[in-house]
Amino acid sequence: MRAAVYRGPGEIEIEEVPRPQVESPTDAVIRVTHTAICGSDLWFYRGLSDREVGSRVGHEPMGIVEEVGEAVTSVEPGDRVIAPFAISCGECEFCRKGLYTSCEEEASWGEANGGGQGEYVKTPFADGHLVRVPDRHADDEDTLRSLLPLTDVLGTGHHAAVSAGVDAGDTVVVIGDGAVGLSGVLAAQRLGAERIIAMGHHEDRLALAEDFGATETIAARGETAVERARELTYGGANHVMECVGAGSAMDTAIDVARDGGTIGYVGVPHGVEEAGLDIHGLFRGNVTLQGGVAPVRDYAEELMADVVGGTLDPAPIFTKTVDLDGVPEGYRAMDDREAIKVLVKPWD
Amino acid sequence: MRAAVYRGPGEIEIEEVPRPQVESPTDAVIRVTHTAICGSDLWFYRGLSDREVGSRVGHEPMGIVEEVGEAVTSVEPGDRVIAPFAISCGECEFCRKGLYTSCEEEASWGEANGGGQGEYVKTPFADGHLVRVPDRHADDEDTLRSLLPLTDVLGTGHHAAVSAGVDAGDTVVVIGDGAVGLSGVLAAQRLGAERIIAMGHHEDRLALAEDFGATETIAARGETAVERARELTYGGANHVMECVGAGSAMDTAIDVARDGGTIGYVGVPHGVEEAGLDIHGLFRGNVTLQGGVAPVRDYAEELMADVVGGTLDPAPIFTKTVDLDGVPEGYRAMDDREAIKVLVKPWD
Repeated sequence: MRAAVYRGPGEIEIEEVPRPQVESPTDAVIRVTHTAICGSDLWFYRGLSDREVGSRVGHEPMGIVEEVGEAVTSVEPGDRVIAPFAISCGECEFCRKGLYTSCEEEASWGEANGGGQGEYVKTPFADGHLVRVPDRHADDEDTLRSLLPLTDVLGTGHHAAVSAGVDAGDTVVVIGDGAVGLSGVLAAQRLGAERIIAMGHHEDRLALAEDFGATETIAARGETAVERARELTYGGANHVMECVGAGSAMDTAIDVARDGGTIGYVGVPHGVEEAGLDIHGLFRGNVTLQGGVAPVRDYAEELMADVVGGTLDPAPIFTKTVDLDGVPEGYRAMDDREAIKVLVKPWD
Repeated sequence: MRAAVYRGPGEIEIEEVPRPQVESPTDAVIRVTHTAICGSDLWFYRGLSDREVGSRVGHEPMGIVEEVGEAVTSVEPGDRVIAPFAISCGECEFCRKGLYTSCEEEASWGEANGGGQGEYVKTPFADGHLVRVPDRHADDEDTLRSLLPLTDVLGTGHHAAVSAGVDAGDTVVVIGDGAVGLSGVLAAQRLGAERIIAMGHHEDRLALAEDFGATETIAARGETAVERARELTYGGANHVMECVGAGSAMDTAIDVARDGGTIGYVGVPHGVEEAGLDIHGLFRGNVTLQGGVAPVRDYAEELMADVVGGTLDPAPIFTKTVDLDGVPEGYRAMDDREAIKVLVKPWD
C-alpha cells in the first residue's frame, strides 16, 4: 500500500510500504477514507522536534473497517469508524476513567499499525479505540468532513475548554487561531460561554473564529494582545484556553488569566524545553493550570451527537483537500500558513 | 518600639523604630504577643531573594488590639487577634470570593504597617483582615501557641491539601518535612485522607509527621524518593502536595503524580527563575497544577474552630521559642535546620 513517510525536515514522501495485517484477535484493519495533517506534524516537519527518518506519519484516520480479529465485537467489516489519535485499549485503569491518552498499553501509530496518512491503518484494540459512525450518517460526505475532526482537533479544542472550566455564561479568552484554537472557540460556544475572545494574528482565521462563535477578536501578539485582553475582561479572564502549544503563548495565557482563574492547555508546550515555564505568575494569582494531551476518545460520542445533529460543525477548518500524492503539498501549505488544516482523501 | 530589621544576608538586628499609629479610620494597631519566623524568611536571609536592606521583617503576628480607627467595628482594644500574613481589605472582588492574597489594595507589612517580628504592627483594614480569638480562649497560652500558625503555616498547609483536591479516603503524597509540609500532613489528615505519605530527609521531622497523621514516610530525595513513592502508590498518587517551594521539589511532585492527578503547591517556587519548570510531565499525564500563595484568611475560622475544639494542634512545629532579642538566633537556628519553626514572644 502507499503511505506518507518522513524523510527529514521539510521532506514528506509517498512510498510503497507493507500493509498492516490483522495479527491479534483484538486487531482491526481500516481502509482510510479521510485523514488529516495536524499542526503538531509541523514540529518535526520544521525540524523543531525529533522524529525518526523513514517513519510513517499521521494520526487522524477515519475509514471503513476492512478486517477484524476474532475477538472484536464492536465493529465489523464495512463499518465507518473514527480512530482517535491516541490508541487506547479501553480496559486499563486510565481508559476506564476516560483518560485514554494515558492508556497503559502505550500502543502507537508507526510501522506495525501504520501512520494515519496512508491507505490503511491497524488498531490493536478495535473495541477500546474505534468509534463507530451510525450507518445513516456513514456515507454522507458532508457529515464525514465534519466528523473527521473528532479524531483529534475538535476533541482537543473541547479538552481545552473543559480544562479551563468553561461553563454557561462564562467569559473566556482563547489563545491561538489555528485549527485547535478555532475548535476551542466552537467548544466554548457549545458549552454556553457568553463572551469568547479569540486571540490570534491572521484576519481570515479570526473571521472564522467569529463564525464559530467568538464575540470579540484580538489580532495582536505579546504585550499588545495581553493589554487588549485585560481591557476587554476588566483585568483578566477566569477562563483561558491556551491552544498554541508554545512557551510564549503560555506566558500570554498567564498574563491574561484573572487571579483565581484557570488555564486550560492542550498544545505540546514547545519552546519551554530550554527556558522552562515561569510559574511565578500562576503562583501569585492562584491560577490553575489544567489540561494536557487531549483524551479525545472520551469526548467522541457527545461531540458526534451534536455533529450529526447539525448543531456543531468544525468542517470549515479544512481549507484545503488533497489526495495521498498531495500530502507533501499539504504540509507545505500548512507550514506556509496558506491552509488552516488539510484534509487528505487517500483513495481519491 | 523595637523590631527586627534586615541588614543584609545573615544579618537580622533588633532596632528602635517608629511605632505604627492609627492614621486612617479603618486602621488597628496591635501589640504583638506572639509571632514567628517563616521558612520563606530564609530566602532573603540566605541572600537567595532580594530584600531592601533596612526593611522590617516578619509577617505572622498575633496579639492584642491596642487602638482602632473610628470605622472599625469587628474588634476593639483588648481583643486577641490573629493577623494573617497577607493584609486584606475584605471588600474587593478577590477578598469577597475568599482569594484574600489577591486583594486589590496590595497593602503589605513594612515601614508603615511594621513587620511581624516587632512589638507592634498596624493593619490598615482591621475589619477585612483581623481574625478575633473568642474571649474564652484568648488568654490560654497553650491555645495561643496552637492558634499562631493560623497566621500562615497551617493555612498554607491546608491550602496545599485543598489545592491537591484531598478528600476523605484519598491517598496523598506530601513533599517536604518543614513546617508547611508538617502542616500539610495535619490538614490532609483532617480532611480524611486514608494514606498520607510524607517525604522528607530529617528523621525527627518525619517522626513528627507520623504524630500528625502520616501513615508512611520516605526519608530520601530525588530518584530514590520518587521510586519509593511510586512503589507505595502503585504507580503514582492522585493527590500530591508540594510543600517545599523549590524547582527540584516540583519536579519530584510531577514524577510522583499519577496521570490525571493534581498537584497542590504553596511554596514560592524558588530555583525555577533560571531553569523554569519543565511542564512536559504535567502535559503528558494531564496532571493539574493548582495552588499558589495561600489565602489563609479564608481558612482561619474553620481551622480555628478545630484548634479550640482540641482536634487540631499544630503547636509541635514550634521547636524553639525566643524573645525579640532572640530573633537573630532564631533565624540562625532555622537556617541551620536546628529548629523546625521558631515562635517569637516580643514582650517576654
